[in-house]
Amino acid sequence: MDRRLTDRLDALYAIGAHAAGADRLAYTANEDAAHALVSTWMADVGLEVARDPVGNLFGRLRGTRPELAEVWTGSHLDSVPGGGRFDGPLGVVAGLEAVERIGRQERTLCVVAFRDEEGSRFGRGCFGSRALCGLLEPGELDTRDAAGIALREAVGNEPSPGGWLDPPLAFVEVHIEQGPELERRSAPLGVVTAIVGLARLAVIFDGREGHAGTTPMSARDDALCKAASFVLAVRDTAERVGHGAVATVGSVVVTPNAANVIPAVVELLVDARAPEETTLAELLREIQVAAAGARLTQLRRTSPAPMDVGVRDVIGSAIVEVGVDVQELYSGAGHDAGVLARAGVPSGMLFVRSRNGGISHSPDEHSDDADVRRAVEALMGALRRLASSA
Amino acid sequence: MDRRLTDRLDALYAIGAHAAGADRLAYTANEDAAHALVSTWMADVGLEVARDPVGNLFGRLRGTRPELAEVWTGSHLDSVPGGGRFDGPLGVVAGLEAVERIGRQERTLCVVAFRDEEGSRFGRGCFGSRALCGLLEPGELDTRDAAGIALREAVGNEPSPGGWLDPPLAFVEVHIEQGPELERRSAPLGVVTAIVGLARLAVIFDGREGHAGTTPMSARDDALCKAASFVLAVRDTAERVGHGAVATVGSVVVTPNAANVIPAVVELLVDARAPEETTLAELLREIQVAAAGARLTQLRRTSPAPMDVGVRDVIGSAIVEVGVDVQELYSGAGHDAGVLARAGVPSGMLFVRSRNGGISHSPDEHSDDADVRRAVEALMGALRRLASSA
Repeated sequence: MDRRLTDRLDALYAIGAHAAGADRLAYTANEDAAHALVSTWMADVGLEVARDPVGNLFGRLRGTRPELAEVWTGSHLDSVPGGGRFDGPLGVVAGLEAVERIGRQERTLCVVAFRDEEGSRFGRGCFGSRALCGLLEPGELDTRDAAGIALREAVGNEPSPGGWLDPPLAFVEVHIEQGPELERRSAPLGVVTAIVGLARLAVIFDGREGHAGTTPMSARDDALCKAASFVLAVRDTAERVGHGAVATVGSVVVTPNAANVIPAVVELLVDARAPEETTLAELLREIQVAAAGARLTQLRRTSPAPMDVGVRDVIGSAIVEVGVDVQELYSGAGHDAGVLARAGVPSGMLFVRSRNGGISHSPDEHSDDADVRRAVEALMGALRRLASSA
Repeated sequence: MDRRLTDRLDALYAIGAHAAGADRLAYTANEDAAHALVSTWMADVGLEVARDPVGNLFGRLRGTRPELAEVWTGSHLDSVPGGGRFDGPLGVVAGLEAVERIGRQERTLCVVAFRDEEGSRFGRGCFGSRALCGLLEPGELDTRDAAGIALREAVGNEPSPGGWLDPPLAFVEVHIEQGPELERRSAPLGVVTAIVGLARLAVIFDGREGHAGTTPMSARDDALCKAASFVLAVRDTAERVGHGAVATVGSVVVTPNAANVIPAVVELLVDARAPEETTLAELLREIQVAAAGARLTQLRRTSPAPMDVGVRDVIGSAIVEVGVDVQELYSGAGHDAGVLARAGVPSGMLFVRSRNGGISHSPDEHSDDADVRRAVEALMGALRRLASSA
């Protein structure tokens, strides 16, 4: 199988590849091409190919007892600008490989390739799976990309508000970790316990503009000094709260941003995440305290999505069967499995060790062939067990 | 005199005025118009009008002993974008008023209006006075403005590299303080002891870009956290060094500046000033220590310009003669008097109290009529004394 799976990853990476990674943004010709290519692979091995109104792709291997709920596996095919070889395509290609190799089971097996997981083009991730599950935001279809094209137009066929999911029995997503944890533990595979909850905050510090030469230190109200204290407080807070909490100030805009003018206004964006709701709530409470005196707006908040305990157990057992220790970890990034979990589908994720410290969204993104092979074998075991009526 | 001086300030402010201040940028039609207007006022009261190759304007009242060195007073007529009513024009108009009122003296009196003091258009201040004194930077005439026009073209007449100064006996510049110090001391007038030295530094912090969700706090190398510590250290250093030291981080550029990406590179601009060379050197040394691990480039450095002790005494005595306490202070902003001092001209400055906390470069820039009146009277006394051969 090695050759076929690697060849398929290469073929998908080649769509939109350049020196700094591959561009397969949502609803572009490149994402379309990736979906078209995967659908031919599905058809070639006898899967029944279907698409939903936003273009999510499904390849079904009809079960011997098709009246039973289906078992799904898969991921997404779009990329960020300059994306890597594994983020997304690995889950689709590994799912296809596993289904081909285990063949017909009692339950219908379905390999799914979601649309627009990254959200790089229209700003919110997991569009395809959220549309499927009826979890779009009000007005989201009218969001426009940088070129002024509305999401509604990009999808092309006047999609309904979504929510056409016929819930499967379970969903298993194989994905690279995109972090350093498994590499640190010298472990090839991991079972995800939860996908972190995320809050995005805008924090604006106001000061008083002034001449950098004529305003004594004692007479200043420097918005940047306030913001700098806050940046450090955000870091310290996340470290103190622990339990997987992370918080990042990734964006800073200073006004007027001139070398000889004391900053009047500093706008920051904060990304705060935690794998458990109580931790996320504590983190946000403490960040709010640190932002005392600033204008704080919560732009978005998603609760953590715990993975289904039953599905986790099945994945864990399958990992043991291929001779690998079970490592549990949470996912710091969002995934389609989190959306399906929120929609009530028992979901689980099988993480594959990322190399190079977990670098992702980059041509340096890498997972070893041997790790990928074991992931496929573990997925085969998990799908066999889930697809059995016993 | 009150009416005439106020009317003249109003007439100059009207050139380029709009709701957010006045625009009389260097070598624009508006600066030209201001120079033309002042030259008519000079001619009307019998001053001999002259211009040098970069358009600095001189109005001379020939002395009874014209073989003696001249006494100069004046300032500049250009403004920053959205400038106020006093910064620059006050020194020219007050000089003209004083010369008109004291009339012919032994030494020739000269009212000067320098070009391009603010440097808003081509990036470096005091161009006119530096050209006069032969203190231009190499290649400076080839600097271009935002529209791509070279300074050489803006000046219009293929200026020589400058340095045509025939040094006067003394230069006295009346200027608003542009700071809160005199207002804080409830003092209308001040004598400047020195114009601060200034350094401009570019400081670049490097970190490691990473996913804001999947990178644990302990595995981060966040360029913004390093930069934030530095911003606070710059402030703390200036406060600790004291003796008039000020330091400001006014500009921040974060790469990639995305909410969900750990910052990889942060570029800061630091403005550091102090009225004495030893203080400036200490301040810069300590900022360099705080920037350990960063890439630091000194973009520019100007030493403090002490004002001439003799000229300071003359100004101080004249202030006492109009019934006002003498307040000494340094200037945190650069001025043409600093350039002339560097060129060896015994120079002094008479500061007029700024209201509204010292706000400047703004339509809210203000000095009281009564303070301006006393400044003119003190300037008259100082010019009389300097222009006497005794």
